[in-house]
Amino acid sequence: MTVDGVVARIRPADAAAAEAARSALDAKTKPRGSLGRLEELAVRVAAIRRRPLPLRAVIVVAAADHGVAEEGVSAYPQVVTAQMLANFERGGAAVSVLARSAGTSVHVVDVGVGRPTANIANGPAMPRGDAERLVVDGAGLAGTLAADGFGLVGLGEMGIANTTSASALAAALLPAEPLAVCGRGTGLDDAGVRRKVGVVERALAANGVEVADPLGVLAALGGSEIAFLVGLALGAAAERLVVLLDGFISSVAGLIAVALAPDARDAMVAAHLSPEPGHALVLEALGLEPLLRLGLRLGEGSGAALALPLVQAALAILDEMATFESAGVADAGR
Amino acid sequence: MTVDGVVARIRPADAAAAEAARSALDAKTKPRGSLGRLEELAVRVAAIRRRPLPLRAVIVVAAADHGVAEEGVSAYPQVVTAQMLANFERGGAAVSVLARSAGTSVHVVDVGVGRPTANIANGPAMPRGDAERLVVDGAGLAGTLAADGFGLVGLGEMGIANTTSASALAAALLPAEPLAVCGRGTGLDDAGVRRKVGVVERALAANGVEVADPLGVLAALGGSEIAFLVGLALGAAAERLVVLLDGFISSVAGLIAVALAPDARDAMVAAHLSPEPGHALVLEALGLEPLLRLGLRLGEGSGAALALPLVQAALAILDEMATFESAGVADAGR
Repeated sequence: MTVDGVVARIRPADAAAAEAARSALDAKTKPRGSLGRLEELAVRVAAIRRRPLPLRAVIVVAAADHGVAEEGVSAYPQVVTAQMLANFERGGAAVSVLARSAGTSVHVVDVGVGRPTANIANGPAMPRGDAERLVVDGAGLAGTLAADGFGLVGLGEMGIANTTSASALAAALLPAEPLAVCGRGTGLDDAGVRRKVGVVERALAANGVEVADPLGVLAALGGSEIAFLVGLALGAAAERLVVLLDGFISSVAGLIAVALAPDARDAMVAAHLSPEPGHALVLEALGLEPLLRLGLRLGEGSGAALALPLVQAALAILDEMATFESAGVADAGR
Repeated sequence: MTVDGVVARIRPADAAAAEAARSALDAKTKPRGSLGRLEELAVRVAAIRRRPLPLRAVIVVAAADHGVAEEGVSAYPQVVTAQMLANFERGGAAVSVLARSAGTSVHVVDVGVGRPTANIANGPAMPRGDAERLVVDGAGLAGTLAADGFGLVGLGEMGIANTTSASALAAALLPAEPLAVCGRGTGLDDAGVRRKVGVVERALAANGVEVADPLGVLAALGGSEIAFLVGLALGAAAERLVVLLDGFISSVAGLIAVALAPDARDAMVAAHLSPEPGHALVLEALGLEPLLRLGLRLGEGSGAALALPLVQAALAILDEMATFESAGVADAGR
């Protein structure tokens, strides 16, 4: 499998399936459109999946370490990535709890914990070939999930300092000023944010990034888990799985996937909007409206797990609600 | 039981329980506050319930007919109230489906279907004694729910033309101009909204409403299901149940409950914000921030059912997440 091979398999959403879902919703015992964005969500999933139910879901958490952590851009030490991996396995992390609460499972993939990428402030995170391999690996997992009957994948991540990598990627690809995309991550103070902006500026200067070459930008600015999620998003779009974006980092992976394959956007749903300033810019560039705005800034796929019951509810409306005709309810003005 | 008797039993939220929940959340393996409003929600429920788990939930749908329907203020004929009651019983309505999707049940209470209140455009909806009885009945149901082990009640309603009643109540109690609180309900066009504004103006003129007498305003502007929900909210607050407000009409019931017993506000959580213009004003007056903003304008308790998984998720975080200590994860700057 190659990146180009995955990209070539991605098709737009199915307009006929969307229209059929819209008609079905209009016949239900409720004023037309009165379930607002829940109806749009049902239509979107129908357009991706064609037969939307049952929708088996999984949250994939890709984890890796980042050389740029040595610049002091996180409030946490690098060892926390590995410690949290163990916490995921034991089911004690936020995403573990939220996935259980939503009736879904978490699949953790270690793509570089303890094997940090190079420090992007000084040069490329990884060779281009490594980035390609990670994208292909991510796409491979999507194929496995599709074969196992999954219909939705939430994109989660863990990696101390990975908001710095994501900020650099967003600045390069939107494009945007580093100041406009750098936020507090999981807990920086004002001085920490200023330091992060400086590191992103250095990373952009040290790497001759070229918007027209998203894969080159990805290799230059890292990190491994982001590259894997780009591939997972592309592979999921190719397999007609719903791609549920989580926070800023996960959405940056979505942005890179769409830069490589514009039709991949049709497969994406934005779970939430975080306070990270770059997140709103990335979702706007993707043309996606987030389902939740709860001030979540944890990552891990936590927002995807929280939004999942809304997706399931939207599909239940499409599948289970009575129609005006079946229920013998009078329609408006008829 | 009397209204005054119920009001006298309502106490503020428990500050010590809130503080204990806050400390517990701060020890969990996530940056402090990084789950945003989900953490606030867990604290709020803890402050109401003291021991928040398990949280057994139910959506109560109170249904009644309204004399003001004869003014042509709804896109649907009055018979739809009764038809939808049958639809609820068969499990085919939106709230039935969404409650099932959220793992909860719907309890329908007929408090006046086919027995409409008087037309508020011409005079009071009901005698004051009827309003008092409905409030007491609603509070009685809260007592039964508490005895049955429920810890959360969602306030749903059904009644053709009841956004007109709710708009008149909001205009009288906020107070606000009728034009500022009247919206499209479940499907009015511009002419319909203008007609509704005119009807609300007539209702306010025909009834000498007095802000200082919320029960008098309730009797004057109706309707029966709103009066019942006011009692349900008061009784639930007295029993330390979480009161999950749904849309505009349900929130107006909450507003009246708080006018009668200010501490009842502590028991309330706002599930969502609808496009109905009065809803934002009512939630602002209540000092409540809605969990969801999905453009829902259906009522029935549909938004409460959709928000319920967020409440359950917030409590799962409080109950199930590992602490930095238990998981052996390094904390920030420690």
